[in-house]
Amino acid sequence: MLKFVSLLLALSCCQGLQHNNIDDYVEAEPVFQASKYGSLWPLPQKVQISEVSFKLTSASFRIVDAKASSAGPSCSLLQSAYRRYYEYMFGSAKKQWGSKNNRRSDPSDLTELQVWITSPDSECDGYPSVTSDESYELTVNQPVAVLKAPKVWGALHGLETFSQLVFEDEYGAKSINATIINDFPRFQHRGILLDSSRHFLPIKVILSNLETMAMNKINVFHWHIVDEQSFPYLSRTFPQLSEQGAYHPYTHVYTPADVKMVIEFARLRGIRVVPEFDTPGHTQSWGKGQKDLLTPCYSGSKPSGSFGPVNPILNTTYDFMAKFFTEISTVFPDGYIHLGGDEVDFTCWKSNPDIQKFMEQQHFGEDYSKLESFYIQKLLDIVASTKKGYLVWQEVFDNGVKLKADTLIHVWKGNQEQYHNEMASVTASGYQTLLSTPWYLNRISYGQDWQGFYKADPQDFKGTDEQKKLVIGGEACLWGEYVDATNLTPRLWPRASAVAERLWSAKNVTDIDDAFNRLSLHRCRMVERGIPAEPLFSSYCPREYKGV
Amino acid sequence: MLKFVSLLLALSCCQGLQHNNIDDYVEAEPVFQASKYGSLWPLPQKVQISEVSFKLTSASFRIVDAKASSAGPSCSLLQSAYRRYYEYMFGSAKKQWGSKNNRRSDPSDLTELQVWITSPDSECDGYPSVTSDESYELTVNQPVAVLKAPKVWGALHGLETFSQLVFEDEYGAKSINATIINDFPRFQHRGILLDSSRHFLPIKVILSNLETMAMNKINVFHWHIVDEQSFPYLSRTFPQLSEQGAYHPYTHVYTPADVKMVIEFARLRGIRVVPEFDTPGHTQSWGKGQKDLLTPCYSGSKPSGSFGPVNPILNTTYDFMAKFFTEISTVFPDGYIHLGGDEVDFTCWKSNPDIQKFMEQQHFGEDYSKLESFYIQKLLDIVASTKKGYLVWQEVFDNGVKLKADTLIHVWKGNQEQYHNEMASVTASGYQTLLSTPWYLNRISYGQDWQGFYKADPQDFKGTDEQKKLVIGGEACLWGEYVDATNLTPRLWPRASAVAERLWSAKNVTDIDDAFNRLSLHRCRMVERGIPAEPLFSSYCPREYKGV
Repeated sequence: MLKFVSLLLALSCCQGLQHNNIDDYVEAEPVFQASKYGSLWPLPQKVQISEVSFKLTSASFRIVDAKASSAGPSCSLLQSAYRRYYEYMFGSAKKQWGSKNNRRSDPSDLTELQVWITSPDSECDGYPSVTSDESYELTVNQPVAVLKAPKVWGALHGLETFSQLVFEDEYGAKSINATIINDFPRFQHRGILLDSSRHFLPIKVILSNLETMAMNKINVFHWHIVDEQSFPYLSRTFPQLSEQGAYHPYTHVYTPADVKMVIEFARLRGIRVVPEFDTPGHTQSWGKGQKDLLTPCYSGSKPSGSFGPVNPILNTTYDFMAKFFTEISTVFPDGYIHLGGDEVDFTCWKSNPDIQKFMEQQHFGEDYSKLESFYIQKLLDIVASTKKGYLVWQEVFDNGVKLKADTLIHVWKGNQEQYHNEMASVTASGYQTLLSTPWYLNRISYGQDWQGFYKADPQDFKGTDEQKKLVIGGEACLWGEYVDATNLTPRLWPRASAVAERLWSAKNVTDIDDAFNRLSLHRCRMVERGIPAEPLFSSYCPREYKGV
Repeated sequence: MLKFVSLLLALSCCQGLQHNNIDDYVEAEPVFQASKYGSLWPLPQKVQISEVSFKLTSASFRIVDAKASSAGPSCSLLQSAYRRYYEYMFGSAKKQWGSKNNRRSDPSDLTELQVWITSPDSECDGYPSVTSDESYELTVNQPVAVLKAPKVWGALHGLETFSQLVFEDEYGAKSINATIINDFPRFQHRGILLDSSRHFLPIKVILSNLETMAMNKINVFHWHIVDEQSFPYLSRTFPQLSEQGAYHPYTHVYTPADVKMVIEFARLRGIRVVPEFDTPGHTQSWGKGQKDLLTPCYSGSKPSGSFGPVNPILNTTYDFMAKFFTEISTVFPDGYIHLGGDEVDFTCWKSNPDIQKFMEQQHFGEDYSKLESFYIQKLLDIVASTKKGYLVWQEVFDNGVKLKADTLIHVWKGNQEQYHNEMASVTASGYQTLLSTPWYLNRISYGQDWQGFYKADPQDFKGTDEQKKLVIGGEACLWGEYVDATNLTPRLWPRASAVAERLWSAKNVTDIDDAFNRLSLHRCRMVERGIPAEPLFSSYCPREYKGV
């Protein structure tokens, strides 16, 4: 029988009462029961767990490269992952054991996990991409456990899975059951959007959330780095953008070194960093440091002093964008840039006589979405010349902008019926798509809202198999109006974990009770690893969060 | 002109756009403007701030006892408050200054705050109570500032206010304007309920929230210490209660030493600790360690194995309660104990043949609220014999239990109309009352919900002046189903600050824009003091939260 003594939650009892809850909110209390899958999250594609168990000691257990592995000691990505997971598995317990010389070899011990990269190119020094092979096979048995993966990306996921299999028996001894796992993601793009414009997010916060993304097999950090409110990205080409546009030019900016650190920290965890520089709307903060970039709004016949979206009728705008995105394309190694393109307000454009004249010349009539398309098409050409692919918010598609065939359309609007229709329409046009609508984690409500996130499925729209294949995944979005370093992490986790399982595990993994049981344990594991992941419901963790 | 450079927030701009917000939630963006009251929170009753300002240096500034003060160096409550507020005002800056010998005396400096306890009995070594005098007068002028208060409780509030007046000018120099403040609370009972049963709250979390309560002039910590889910209170008389009823008997309990520490930490900040031991419902965790305390439920003619509320028909129940509350009355020095009494489910009582028989003997008919009253009246007699006053949830009043005239009725149910009616009805019967209905902070919703908390007024019901006077205050409640150490603090602050101002400041302090401006600065001050108070809206703090 599986034993998860250490993480076993005494989820509360009995009578469905909730003290002082207003009646229409009373829900039955979920009762915790150990899942046959223990604390695995997200659930692997194929899992066989035997009742035979082995012990692991911190003195004897080692994670090593398999002899035949194409990644050896020089692969620092794996070597540092070994250290990280050793620490997670043995943590503070390791001191109770003696020195290396004490390596014991009790026959019932599991003493080694061999990591075997099977493809000739391990991709150890590369960057993950949307086509990366993330699969792995894990066999836990005596005398050694073996983790096979074509690429390092799968090995990273396998290490996380291995660490999730380790539990403490009733004596506190680290144990693991004989297990066979064959695993790969259902979707290739499993992202989280963080917004560092509405509130600046200290690097420390970003890194610890990247760490947590890895625990959930999330592989894309969508960095919504700038917006109306502030421009914290320090551009080498246009330093005045953050000098003028950041909340503070020194304390509230991301320097080139910061950005590099984020990208490398993410790479070491198999996570892509996809930056978003949203234009032509959402650009107030850009205008502070870049004269003439934004459209001057008019009040009657005179400039009002306020500014609207990027000015699409000036050549200087495109000169600026060409230089700016050339820099971005070198600073961010990922194959994709998110170009935004959402929520363009036409009021200011309409007020400006020069724009009106341009509209006439171009025969756009009164259709300002044509002007928007004019801008976006020129921008896409600029970005395409940097050899990057691009993502755009759905409006760009909705407004009929001519797009390259490999453009990714990011769906975020509407209710369920509307986003289903949008997914159907985007994929019917042959575009790849990405869903976020049901996963706006900034929207909070009382109770277990993770269940709603968990139930949404990005392929639940009417369409052919061909269309369904164009869905490459989804992203949980945590917009920044109401979150900063003080509350971001507990608001994101474990709510984003629900999305992580939906995007990784098989489509038929939908048992909400089993999910509750595994996720309860998974959240306590995150807490034990120092992440303030909030509780699902009345319960306790054996080791509570140590922070304030 | 007042300068709040250091805390000035660049609250965001312009166009009322909110990226990717679903339409029906779009709100105009609040624009930050410095209030003429700076960052004062809660707003004092009378404030006059002059344009003359003085500088303070960490090397020269001192907080001292006034010569005529009735509290001297032996009053460790005040001495430790001086240190605390010196630290808050000068914090990390203090190291840039030289040693004591460098005490400068620039004529424009403010070098001293004299604290003058005017009443012969300072109450330095006592406990705060519902009748404590919390008033103070603060005069900031040269050569010294003077804080006068009848008792230490007012002095503590005055120190907080003084620290809120200190700001950094554009050179980072600590400054304060000449000011006259005359202040006292509108309501005597300004509480926060924390629930350590649904989730265990580590002592560290409780202490740092007590610290934050003091920053908000909250004077009651309502400790909902036990409930259905767990019994973390380690009773000296009945240690088996936590031995069996806590989530864990060692790691998830409050020892007598812990409780003592909480009470003293609170006392030093002018905060009462009012414990709640809720019966006869909400007692599942009690039953684990105390045989026969709970009512055995029946399924047909046989016990079902599950248990209901406290068994009201056994003498042993009252023997237990007498011993238990005798202990509680000595462990907790406050004059009041909260006895709960809410949400008693009659299903189990109805199923039990012994209870049915008792109902007949007592001629209660089918009215189980009479049985509830029978129990509560016996309990009240027990607690009254310990010389404590008591608070009860409104059901006890609603069910017509005979109460002592000085019982406090705690209103928590219903919508606005219903709680207005309840307040009217309770006060018409001559009872003192306390409001919580509009301040259930566990209920979260998207956006600036603090505004709703701010607008609720406990005296806005139909009644005579006499009735209004019976309203002694209110409490913000943070029930624990969805909060623990990971997310409690940012969920509580600054939302509870809105309640704090409502309960302290004059009834006509209702300007929501001014409140937004002051509260934005107040929340950054809490962040600067190490408290992860969440943001009100897009903004930044000069010194962001340093934690994860």
